[in-house]
Amino acid sequence: MAKPISIEVWNPSGKYRVVSTKSMPGTRWIRLLTNNDCRLEICTEQKTILSVDDILALIGDRCDGVIGQLTEDWGDVLFSALKRAGGTAFSNMAVGYNNVDVEAANRNGIAVGNTPGVLTETTAELAASLTLSAARRIVEADQFMRAGLYDGWLPHLFVGNLLKGQTVGVIGAGRIGSAYARMMIEGFKMNLIYYDLYQATRLEKFVTAYGQFLKANGEEPVTWKRAATMEDVLREADVISLHPVLDKTTYHLINPERLAIMKKDAVLVNASRGPVIDEVALVEHLKANPMFRVGLDVFEDEPYMKPGLADMKNAVVVPHIASASKWTREGMATLTALNVLGKIKGYPVWGNPNQVEPFLEENSTPPRACPSIVNAKQLGW
Amino acid sequence: MAKPISIEVWNPSGKYRVVSTKSMPGTRWIRLLTNNDCRLEICTEQKTILSVDDILALIGDRCDGVIGQLTEDWGDVLFSALKRAGGTAFSNMAVGYNNVDVEAANRNGIAVGNTPGVLTETTAELAASLTLSAARRIVEADQFMRAGLYDGWLPHLFVGNLLKGQTVGVIGAGRIGSAYARMMIEGFKMNLIYYDLYQATRLEKFVTAYGQFLKANGEEPVTWKRAATMEDVLREADVISLHPVLDKTTYHLINPERLAIMKKDAVLVNASRGPVIDEVALVEHLKANPMFRVGLDVFEDEPYMKPGLADMKNAVVVPHIASASKWTREGMATLTALNVLGKIKGYPVWGNPNQVEPFLEENSTPPRACPSIVNAKQLGW
Repeated sequence: MAKPISIEVWNPSGKYRVVSTKSMPGTRWIRLLTNNDCRLEICTEQKTILSVDDILALIGDRCDGVIGQLTEDWGDVLFSALKRAGGTAFSNMAVGYNNVDVEAANRNGIAVGNTPGVLTETTAELAASLTLSAARRIVEADQFMRAGLYDGWLPHLFVGNLLKGQTVGVIGAGRIGSAYARMMIEGFKMNLIYYDLYQATRLEKFVTAYGQFLKANGEEPVTWKRAATMEDVLREADVISLHPVLDKTTYHLINPERLAIMKKDAVLVNASRGPVIDEVALVEHLKANPMFRVGLDVFEDEPYMKPGLADMKNAVVVPHIASASKWTREGMATLTALNVLGKIKGYPVWGNPNQVEPFLEENSTPPRACPSIVNAKQLGW
Repeated sequence: MAKPISIEVWNPSGKYRVVSTKSMPGTRWIRLLTNNDCRLEICTEQKTILSVDDILALIGDRCDGVIGQLTEDWGDVLFSALKRAGGTAFSNMAVGYNNVDVEAANRNGIAVGNTPGVLTETTAELAASLTLSAARRIVEADQFMRAGLYDGWLPHLFVGNLLKGQTVGVIGAGRIGSAYARMMIEGFKMNLIYYDLYQATRLEKFVTAYGQFLKANGEEPVTWKRAATMEDVLREADVISLHPVLDKTTYHLINPERLAIMKKDAVLVNASRGPVIDEVALVEHLKANPMFRVGLDVFEDEPYMKPGLADMKNAVVVPHIASASKWTREGMATLTALNVLGKIKGYPVWGNPNQVEPFLEENSTPPRACPSIVNAKQLGW
């Protein structure tokens, strides 16, 4: 006999059966489903990652839709099981969907939802938090203090970097990279150098206008520059934040050669994807350059770190929490519920998946639309 | 026989003997002295805080000037010894000089220098670093990651606060408080509420202009409000940073009653002076409110923390490093050297102690002035 699986059932008499593989922050997503005739079953198992077998058991014989996580393997096995159970809707609680075989979903006629539109600022703020923590050595200073090692003010104790007037380098100036650039430029009066295949026209225009605004107020203006090569950014910048997409061209984008051209006391931040940094090379570089500092939200072999990284005092390492603000995570939960509910109800797909703020208001009327379905076109929607 | 004391001697044949009780960051301060006919002796003892006896031994029979630290007790014993040794100049490596008995210095005809003009931005950036670290739970997340506890992305893991659109409260809107306010307003589009005995006219005007600038660029403007009472700030703000002076009216300014009116998930930051917070009450509040977070650079019984604080996961604690940037600490060292050198050479006092940036340029000609002497008037200068 198989082991039982723990669930929490909301609105047991609801017509549509919706399963969430995890408990999610907030309660609006629960109300959205239960107020719209869904029976909601939330898996409350303590294990972090559910196996395909666990999820098969959750889907069972009859299931209209599933809210899943990016740690789960959504391929033909699960999508065909969902189809057999009468289901048509799945939503990942994430923007990315590398864990989803969209072709398999298409074959089984299952809509695949995701949750863009609520992660930009929270992710950029996490990159800024890593930048400041690394620049001012907050984690190692905190450990020193807690260990009772502080016995009086000293001129050399945890001397870090002043950001004002320094140069921030951004690699990948898309939505998140641009939001991060603005935080560092406006907040800390840093000058910008960026590298991107495309010109970040909006960002350039804004920084120009902001520089003029500062000048008109009798202050030093900030400047921007689009670099011809990534190397120019790495050579010139005092702080470098990585915001590329992950593909073959950006795998190990930060390698031993590129680490070697960076300033010896630079701050490097990665809240994008782990494999863009050669993490073994990074550990060597951190060992050889004690004033070089790094802030990492993602790792090459996530959830693991390469040997030695956990011992480096000049690293700040956090467990993939870039989107972990209350506002964003509750928003993601709401969007997953709306994706699944919309498909069940036969609603159309919302026009602009990045403009979903009106959907998130605690007491607003839910939209008669799915916020974001990645395979809508393939399903002939 | 007394124990010997370790020193490092620069330019042994210099005419004027100057003692520094500590090694300080950078080398410009050393060159300023040695290029101007000073024999410089730097104490290299490993103990953090030198006693009065240690410093008496350093002053010896003949000494023109001393560079000291805020951890040292500069009263009549040391100033009269310095006078007997033929000295006329002392400079604290700090803006504050609570450790200095200025009356005693006056009686002995010793100039007392300090180092304003280089701490504002570095201190405000440390307050911003504490704010972001606390808001996004960087220290506890880092410890979790290093302990190997991360086994996969989870919706509830280290969910923190998004700053954008929230309210930053500033108590004490002087130089540092205003610089901090601007970082949070411009960097993170926070709205400002502040409390100060005096109107922060410059800050208000700037925030108004910045709000208009944002609006002209099609963005949501930021707002400001001067609160009638400190309680209004504590009640309304999502992030509160303390920047008052320490005196009888601000001792235990944050007490149990005031903690009780703050939001349950507020972030409180203190990079001003330890005793403005009732630290015992704060520990109780942190225990009772796990989502309330605090970032502290200073402590009531520095270098110690009140019992329990070191165990709180919702606290970020760093050892008085607000001025610890390379630029600031090297600047402070330069200013102490210029204070002592200027007095020895008989130069006048510089007009504006907050405008000293031209003095700091690595290769600039040293000014024929003392940057900042706090008792110049009393000495009839």
